[in-house]
Amino acid sequence: MRITEPWVDDENAALLTDLYQLTMLQAYWREEMEEEGTFSLFARRLPKTRNYLLACGLDDVLRYLEVLRFTGEALDYLSTFDQFSADFLERLERFRFTGDVHAVPEGTPIFANEPILEVTAPISQAQLVETFAMNQIHLQTVLASKAARVVEAARGRAVVDFGLRRMHGTDAGMKAARAFHVAGVAATSNVLAGRVYGLRVTGTMAHSYVQAHDEEMEAFRAFATLYPGTTLLVDTYDTLEAVRKVVRLARELGDAFTVRAIRLDSGDLIELAFEARRMLDDAGLQGVEIFTSGGLDEHEVDRIVKAGAPITGFGVGTGMGVSADAPSFDVAYKLTSYAGRGRLKLSPGKPILPGRKQVFRVEEADQAVGDVIARAEEELPGRPLLVPVMRDGRRVSVERADLEHARARARDEIGRLPDRIRALEMADPPYPVELSRALESYTREMAEVATEAAR
Amino acid sequence: MRITEPWVDDENAALLTDLYQLTMLQAYWREEMEEEGTFSLFARRLPKTRNYLLACGLDDVLRYLEVLRFTGEALDYLSTFDQFSADFLERLERFRFTGDVHAVPEGTPIFANEPILEVTAPISQAQLVETFAMNQIHLQTVLASKAARVVEAARGRAVVDFGLRRMHGTDAGMKAARAFHVAGVAATSNVLAGRVYGLRVTGTMAHSYVQAHDEEMEAFRAFATLYPGTTLLVDTYDTLEAVRKVVRLARELGDAFTVRAIRLDSGDLIELAFEARRMLDDAGLQGVEIFTSGGLDEHEVDRIVKAGAPITGFGVGTGMGVSADAPSFDVAYKLTSYAGRGRLKLSPGKPILPGRKQVFRVEEADQAVGDVIARAEEELPGRPLLVPVMRDGRRVSVERADLEHARARARDEIGRLPDRIRALEMADPPYPVELSRALESYTREMAEVATEAAR
Repeated sequence: MRITEPWVDDENAALLTDLYQLTMLQAYWREEMEEEGTFSLFARRLPKTRNYLLACGLDDVLRYLEVLRFTGEALDYLSTFDQFSADFLERLERFRFTGDVHAVPEGTPIFANEPILEVTAPISQAQLVETFAMNQIHLQTVLASKAARVVEAARGRAVVDFGLRRMHGTDAGMKAARAFHVAGVAATSNVLAGRVYGLRVTGTMAHSYVQAHDEEMEAFRAFATLYPGTTLLVDTYDTLEAVRKVVRLARELGDAFTVRAIRLDSGDLIELAFEARRMLDDAGLQGVEIFTSGGLDEHEVDRIVKAGAPITGFGVGTGMGVSADAPSFDVAYKLTSYAGRGRLKLSPGKPILPGRKQVFRVEEADQAVGDVIARAEEELPGRPLLVPVMRDGRRVSVERADLEHARARARDEIGRLPDRIRALEMADPPYPVELSRALESYTREMAEVATEAAR
Repeated sequence: MRITEPWVDDENAALLTDLYQLTMLQAYWREEMEEEGTFSLFARRLPKTRNYLLACGLDDVLRYLEVLRFTGEALDYLSTFDQFSADFLERLERFRFTGDVHAVPEGTPIFANEPILEVTAPISQAQLVETFAMNQIHLQTVLASKAARVVEAARGRAVVDFGLRRMHGTDAGMKAARAFHVAGVAATSNVLAGRVYGLRVTGTMAHSYVQAHDEEMEAFRAFATLYPGTTLLVDTYDTLEAVRKVVRLARELGDAFTVRAIRLDSGDLIELAFEARRMLDDAGLQGVEIFTSGGLDEHEVDRIVKAGAPITGFGVGTGMGVSADAPSFDVAYKLTSYAGRGRLKLSPGKPILPGRKQVFRVEEADQAVGDVIARAEEELPGRPLLVPVMRDGRRVSVERADLEHARARARDEIGRLPDRIRALEMADPPYPVELSRALESYTREMAEVATEAAR
């Protein structure tokens, strides 16, 4: 058994793909099928508990397309497969992505069947990048979509990402912090995400720190003295007893007392928050905020906010970090055009809209009232959502997709959605998405061609 | 905004942690709390749809403990936080993990409250590694536990991992293939996982390849000619029509026809499999197998197998790849001992068993009948599950944890579980797990001490 480094990076990401991408690539080359194909990445349907998805992850896909190379080490490994010929591997060494990408910018709410991105390139290139593009867009869209709901439920109170320990691996930990930032999350506990993405990093203290001290009060005193403006965790033994200690500590330290918040992590959070607030207020500690954590999700946050509990921030972990109610959506990356002709398939329940497309978002008084999925060349009423982001393998803008812009866009675009679509409950009726007449008739036409291909 | 490489590797993994680990570390050092602590990593409870968890991910944690370092770059970043003093950062530069680890070997079925691993080290060290240890053990245990169910349902038929595109990021894609191998999955489509872990890599063809050809038959002919022993995807347009083409292709190619299987990916898989089998058999193609994919999970695989459908393999993607029904479990990493004294907390619903522990699996006639969680130094009837795996920061065995051993262990250990625990349905009664009398009385004793600490 061979074990190399278990990390994915720019050097080996080309191999992070499904084997069939490479066998198909060799077949396309062998058959001299080098004409342009368009693949469309979209959600076949929304998860049952989502009124919309928040598109995210584009930047990582563009970065991959820019740096995609097969190293000598990768080719050596592929040479151990008897499927691949020497001349294929030689050609693979020169492989570069030279195609175009149109996409909805990160932070745009999207709906079923709307392209999140479209890749147009010689078919072999567009085919090869499928797995990575899906992996990154799917993950970040899943997580941004979940976080948007938590942020919505918090109604302006801070939501902090505490999920790294239960997210699915290291890459998910990083990309989650990024996607959460786009969705409006205030800060993360993930230090590396802070460094890589320039995010605000925060943290409190763990139960173990309290337990390691012979007395809870000692732990509070030491931490509060060392870290001005810190947060003390009060549920290790008895929450209200611990709040009393915070009050005692305030008296003891006088002006040196700078504790910013207490954190509730178990028990009846609403009841405890009211009681702790009263105790803090009675002691003149109106400035000490109450922060909560412990199994929170959008529904629990909503319940706390609706109860009027005096809580100013939420540390949200697993529920948001794995998008527990909808850890995946039915994302597809499908060939919609090849050699100038729309393509589709006829598999039951898995329709494809042929050709390159555009989505028009129709708005009235700054409120979105419906989308129209159209052929790319159509000009219809509404705001077109897909924009060119890469041409001939280079980003259209030389700047990196700016995270702060994506976050501002998400806030603005979500703000334009109808209230029932922003709500946590499932919208009835759902957001209206129609096909343009031209796309409808093109789809019918191409279905006939596909029926021919099936003969 | 600053963007550096979005990849985690040995160089920066030290920063992939929650900020509070670092603030607590500084506090422990400042308070001269350097005595030995033991942290226990365990599941507080099993997910509602799991009768057991299959422990996995230890190797990645041990590897991390061996290489854990703070680079100059990491320290530069930490120096931008006003919480950290210059002398702390200087000391962090020399940080090494020098502790001991006891753990259940990968591929061992475990139950609620049983330690998956225990870290014993100066408390600051054992604290710091919490986030990464949880992240990796949680992910791989989640995925191995799910895959074990799919493998069980397949009753000897091959299960192939097709999930990379919808797994949560690149690390999940790699670790899933690894965890699935431990759980008995036959192969993966993930090429890089094949290279890194020495796994069998397989693949078929995508709809896009068929669509890109003007006729489905052309696509079949080209692929079958190029790849001896390949699998043809037959549901792009009309499954049974496509099976007829496979039959025609067999006649056309004669001895050169080496297609090993067809793949069904949509529609009524059971009905289509029977019909396709009949058509292939009628044409003398008994050797062409039927492989299925498309939204499979353990329940769907079970339904197909119980219907007696003539299917020899399953390509399983999203359902297994994100462990859709249980994408997380309530994993905890808790201080159970410090300075020679058992520690626990009293938060409602979140009990901790104090001290270092051992788990004894009691077996009768090679069948596990129950586990006893005991204090580490106890010797009780049954097979002890926790073994030393790291001493003074070095692996006890110089060899890497061998994946093939873990896979063999999983097969053997799952084989010793009662049938009702291996079953897909929830076991009633669940697997019996008791506390030893010594652990029970130590827990009571330490609860009294904790009540003191709370005063």
